Amino acid sequence: MEFSSKLLEKAVNEMSQLPGIGKRTALRLVLHLLRQPEGQTLQLTKALESMRTDIKFCKSCNNISDNEICEICANPHRTNEIICVVEDIRDVMAIENTSSFRGLYHVLGGKISPMDGIGPNDLNIQPLVEKVKQGTVKELIFALGSTMEGDTTNFYIYRQIQDYKITTSTIARGISVGNELEYTDEITLGRSIINRIPFEASLKS
Amino acid sequence: MEFSSKLLEKAVNEMSQLPGIGKRTALRLVLHLLRQPEGQTLQLTKALESMRTDIKFCKSCNNISDNEICEICANPHRTNEIICVVEDIRDVMAIENTSSFRGLYHVLGGKISPMDGIGPNDLNIQPLVEKVKQGTVKELIFALGSTMEGDTTNFYIYRQIQDYKITTSTIARGISVGNELEYTDEITLGRSIINRIPFEASLKS
Ligand SMILES: [Zn+2]
Ligand SMILES: [Zn+2]
Repeated sequence: MEFSSKLLEKAVNEMSQLPGIGKRTALRLVLHLLRQPEGQTLQLTKALESMRTDIKFCKSCNNISDNEICEICANPHRTNEIICVVEDIRDVMAIENTSSFRGLYHVLGGKISPMDGIGPNDLNIQPLVEKVKQGTVKELIFALGSTMEGDTTNFYIYRQIQDYKITTSTIARGISVGNELEYTDEITLGRSIINRIPFEASLKS
Repeated sequence: MEFSSKLLEKAVNEMSQLPGIGKRTALRLVLHLLRQPEGQTLQLTKALESMRTDIKFCKSCNNISDNEICEICANPHRTNEIICVVEDIRDVMAIENTSSFRGLYHVLGGKISPMDGIGPNDLNIQPLVEKVKQGTVKELIFALGSTMEGDTTNFYIYRQIQDYKITTSTIARGISVGNELEYTDEITLGRSIINRIPFEASLKS
């Protein structure tokens, strides 16, 4: 691509660093911004900068938050006896949208994936094990989506906490095998939390 | 969509103002930036800000430029006797990529489209007519893509300049009807410029 402007070229190159945004799409987006009032670009860049610089991760659950402890963990109407283990914040948002869950979350930040070089120590697993050791947790719900990496991660965590007297369950029913959680519709997802099955039972099936 | 962070929500909302970027895609892009070093976000926002604030439009052809007069218009090896009339900068880039054209461009900034409320006065047409009146232009090549709006625009300009003794041609051969210029491959596009046909002939076909 030959650009008549270095400023344009740089903007397109930076934009096309984003996943799924090729050079052609980046050019289309950037030209759109050029046609809009300057304020729109400045609002976008300010919002991205503030987010990247000021956002926090909840010290308790690792959810994205504007405070040290996220709104969910800080909510006195939610029980800390049930913890729903998810991959990332999009899963928290998907489950919150169902209004079916009144416990807390634990965001792992990914799934164990030897292919991608992601091992247990790259994930937020140890703090979850510590939580279980402390004794207030009565149930862990594994909600990682039924992919191979999800199953591996579930099982790894299960092995770490199986000696503690807690219930482990998994949201299997209704979520199609190989499907990511965030693409599941709200009703199916809500129902799959309510109808969760013991983790050991899911291993046998 | 329920967000656990106002900073995240604002970033996603701004990002989803871009055409073709829904809330879900915006969230994916923003979470990607959160996983990357802070520098990547700052480079992106700086590039967008500089572009939006400092970019110029060539005083002669309306092409995007870092200077008052763009590199193409300022190039002494190009002839100002042939002017290729295009819709926007992406068409300039597409034709430049073919290396088949050594004249200058005139960027209209759009096409006449009554449906979208775009009339001749919303476009950069009058300066083109003035250029023709000055007498140095010997040929106008209409390169607007063969859509209805393109044809309407071509014909409108043709009516304005038909009393002046210049050649008008259109790049019809090879570009499929209804197709936008920027999606045409380089070879087809290059050939269609070389094999351009007189504009009057294109009206009869
Ligand atoms: Zn939290
Ligand atoms: Zn120019």
